Amino acid sequence: MRQSGKARSEAFSDGVIAVAITLLVLDLHVYVDGHGSLARQLRDQWPTYAAYVVTFFVIGVIWVNHHSLMMLVDNVDRTLLFYNLLLLLAVTTMPFATSVLADYLRVGGADARLAVTLYGAVSELMAIAFTLMLHRMIHAGLIIFPVDRTQSRRALQRFGLGLAVYPVITVIGLWSPPVMLGLYALQTA
Amino acid sequence: MRQSGKARSEAFSDGVIAVAITLLVLDLHVYVDGHGSLARQLRDQWPTYAAYVVTFFVIGVIWVNHHSLMMLVDNVDRTLLFYNLLLLLAVTTMPFATSVLADYLRVGGADARLAVTLYGAVSELMAIAFTLMLHRMIHAGLIIFPVDRTQSRRALQRFGLGLAVYPVITVIGLWSPPVMLGLYALQTA
Amino acid sequence: MRQSGKARSEAFSDGVIAVAITLLVLDLHVYVDGHGSLARQLRDQWPTYAAYVVTFFVIGVIWVNHHSLMMLVDNVDRTLLFYNLLLLLAVTTMPFATSVLADYLRVGGADARLAVTLYGAVSELMAIAFTLMLHRMIHAGLIIFPVDRTQSRRALQRFGLGLAVYPVITVIGLWSPPVMLGLYALQTA
Amino acid sequence: MRQSGKARSEAFSDGVIAVAITLLVLDLHVYVDGHGSLARQLRDQWPTYAAYVVTFFVIGVIWVNHHSLMMLVDNVDRTLLFYNLLLLLAVTTMPFATSVLADYLRVGGADARLAVTLYGAVSELMAIAFTLMLHRMIHAGLIIFPVDRTQSRRALQRFGLGLAVYPVITVIGLWSPPVMLGLYALQTA
Repeated sequence: MRQSGKARSEAFSDGVIAVAITLLVLDLHVYVDGHGSLARQLRDQWPTYAAYVVTFFVIGVIWVNHHSLMMLVDNVDRTLLFYNLLLLLAVTTMPFATSVLADYLRVGGADARLAVTLYGAVSELMAIAFTLMLHRMIHAGLIIFPVDRTQSRRALQRFGLGLAVYPVITVIGLWSPPVMLGLYALQTA
Repeated sequence: MRQSGKARSEAFSDGVIAVAITLLVLDLHVYVDGHGSLARQLRDQWPTYAAYVVTFFVIGVIWVNHHSLMMLVDNVDRTLLFYNLLLLLAVTTMPFATSVLADYLRVGGADARLAVTLYGAVSELMAIAFTLMLHRMIHAGLIIFPVDRTQSRRALQRFGLGLAVYPVITVIGLWSPPVMLGLYALQTA
Repeated sequence: MRQSGKARSEAFSDGVIAVAITLLVLDLHVYVDGHGSLARQLRDQWPTYAAYVVTFFVIGVIWVNHHSLMMLVDNVDRTLLFYNLLLLLAVTTMPFATSVLADYLRVGGADARLAVTLYGAVSELMAIAFTLMLHRMIHAGLIIFPVDRTQSRRALQRFGLGLAVYPVITVIGLWSPPVMLGLYALQTA
Repeated sequence: MRQSGKARSEAFSDGVIAVAITLLVLDLHVYVDGHGSLARQLRDQWPTYAAYVVTFFVIGVIWVNHHSLMMLVDNVDRTLLFYNLLLLLAVTTMPFATSVLADYLRVGGADARLAVTLYGAVSELMAIAFTLMLHRMIHAGLIIFPVDRTQSRRALQRFGLGLAVYPVITVIGLWSPPVMLGLYALQTA
């Protein structure tokens, strides 16, 4: 019964993350008429392609981390499922935040800064949800016993770091969105 | 063989629910040109964001309840699969009902009341399908034996309650859609 | 290793069918401006809603049948995987065929008959792919032994029937699309 | 624990591939008004339907190959997961490359050649990612032992071949896109 709860949570989360990461592609499109040559459109839309690739790997790493986190889980309760839903809400919102970011990077100004902030806020929500999940796992005794000490502390540190990393990257993005995308790409490595 | 039937039903249902919950994001979009600043668009579209978050958790809780229900299942038959499809039909219709609700909340009047009723009707269909599933499980002997009495009665009560809750929330929504969204959010807690 | 091949084929097929059945909802949409009241739009779009519900159950039953078929499978080979892809191609094309059908039912005339034929052709491709799968399973010895005789013959009969049923329903649809939708709904029962 | 890492990687990859292959259908659409009869639209859009079917089987074969490759895997590490993400990035980009190809095949000229090159580049990225995955599996000792020699060499040869095949097909496509689509279809056989 236990395993089943954990296994289905993983399967559902995998499904949501897989759909969200694939929906990113819906933001890529070119127009045969009235928007210039294909070469020109592909060149002009570089922010869209950059945001697409970076967000793909951001969500991909979220999946890897979710996977690592769930390996520590022995059992799930309703609170953990709720925090997991919060994480999935942030993941499914990423295609929207990515689309807004790509659109307004080309525009610049106050709107571009707001788009950067939105993207950063959704990323931060993922980091917060992860930390809440780990916190719940430790305090409600949902962790597999022999691995809890070292692994859970290391995981907590990594997630605690994530909580600080996204706001810093976002502030940098207010000045230079391309540098921000580069930093997002770097932190997935 | 039995497990396989149950396991694949769970996997398919997880897939459909995961896609439906993620498709909600397709209702979020902003326009670079001709719709005012990004800040203004995000502010004006608050009903869309509120409906997005609330429906995300409504579907998320449906998944949690589906998961709890299937834990009681020992075996599936064609009737149970049919009721399960009915539930999934309601779940996949939620992104449409949510989009209509968000669009017409801003308009108000008779159309907004119709949108509220549509959203309530789809929610009620989910509650009805759940009750039919549980009813079938109990009467066709598809339930795991040692847990049937207390757990199934408790589950029936919860679902019976759901049957009454959605119409009540919907009637309230005819007067105040924002209060309705708040009540939907509350009942997922 | 064997189980793994079968299990992943089931998981992939479940995924494709789950996405296709959920994408049907993308054909439902209303317009706040310039298309009349919400009540009127919902009423005028009845073919879209009828096609949506009927196709949902058609694909749902395809999933149930796929599930029954795979229960007979002991092992998969590349030919069976190819026929399975053919089935999935037909399933993923259903949202397009459904959208075309709903759009042209309102128009009538030669285009409506072509839309009915397209819908029938995609349905027939599903029936053909199923029959090819079962044929391959029997002739390449991919079936679980103790169940092959009676179960495989019964399954072959059901699929052979399907091969004849869709063209008959389609011909009826050339005269009356609503009756056709009713017959599609009936055959899922 | 090991199995779990491998199993969830397979499940996530299955999910992404299943969504990507199903999203191809979103490129198919007809217009009731202002684009001529349905028959004419279906006839004029033949490149879209050809590209749809061919890409469906290209992605389908990618799934079959991914499945074969993962059968050799005993364990996954972060590098292998990264190469797997690279493969999935290419797969999710296929619906976009397919849409661009179909749109510009009708236009011809330099833009059509660029579209062919884009489609070839995304295909080549899939072949490269597969080769990187296999390389990592062999050199990091992630392969199931008794099968490594013959099976891994045969797999490497097949993927090495793929690395050469896509550029050759693409060069042919610069002269005749329809022949290219035929060759893509052939190599899935």
